[in-house]
Amino acid sequence: MSDLSFRELLGQPDIELVRQLARDSGGFSPREVDLAAELVEERLARGLEASGYHFIFAQWGPGVPALGYVCYGPIPLTRSSWDLYWIAVAKGTQRRSVGRRLLAEAERRAGGLGATRFYIDTSGRADYTPTRAFYEAAGYRAAAALPDFYAPGDAKMVFAKAL
Amino acid sequence: MSDLSFRELLGQPDIELVRQLARDSGGFSPREVDLAAELVEERLARGLEASGYHFIFAQWGPGVPALGYVCYGPIPLTRSSWDLYWIAVAKGTQRRSVGRRLLAEAERRAGGLGATRFYIDTSGRADYTPTRAFYEAAGYRAAAALPDFYAPGDAKMVFAKAL
Repeated sequence: MSDLSFRELLGQPDIELVRQLARDSGGFSPREVDLAAELVEERLARGLEASGYHFIFAQWGPGVPALGYVCYGPIPLTRSSWDLYWIAVAKGTQRRSVGRRLLAEAERRAGGLGATRFYIDTSGRADYTPTRAFYEAAGYRAAAALPDFYAPGDAKMVFAKAL
Repeated sequence: MSDLSFRELLGQPDIELVRQLARDSGGFSPREVDLAAELVEERLARGLEASGYHFIFAQWGPGVPALGYVCYGPIPLTRSSWDLYWIAVAKGTQRRSVGRRLLAEAERRAGGLGATRFYIDTSGRADYTPTRAFYEAAGYRAAAALPDFYAPGDAKMVFAKAL
């Protein structure tokens, strides 16, 4: 069995790929899927430096379709804090493992670019319990909770990790 | 003496005006001044809806130069949470009063557009004590603190207010 391989280079087809991966992950609303794709458009239009959006796609060996991706980047006006904007893995086998390895790869590459802290925003809703457990297992801790941020009864949780 | 008047319409000269107001406020770094101006550029390039950046300029009567401005907008993926991105008032007379009234005007107009909560990020550094006191006097409370967010020893404080 092939090992997981990563690529960072982006092209126009990745707008649709990200849309499909976000949709296939089952974890995002239509509006969120649109926004995920918009980040690829912005990256393609403005470049890595100006957009600040880094992408990594994961696939089992070269030449096969990507089955997950992560989008992350430096937080403006901070010295070395980075944000994980999106992570999505298509449902199916090895799902957790691909997500875990994509996140680790993003941290590793960001660390190489000077990142010292990683932040992830997620929901405090009950149906996000597996998502929060995933981040906790990866070494993140809940650093802040903003009640009713996304909607009444839907808090924003900020997870943080020192690299 | 004239009363304070507000305007929302933007034009190309406001890129330089915002840069000047942010600089004259004395509260922003050169990088922050650049970023403040970039938000005007993005608003002019993409429009109100797509950029999400609302602006209000304040001046003592019509036809005199603006002496402060606020930039705010709806937070994507939230139902009715809004963010105060920037507020800057040129140093001089009536400074606190102009800032207070600009903030109140932003809340009032956002409320009219459906906002139910306002968020403001600021620094936890000692030299930001007057800034935090300003938000507290306006009814905001510190809802989260993220240590070392901006830099080692420089926390991000999130202030929140239910409208």
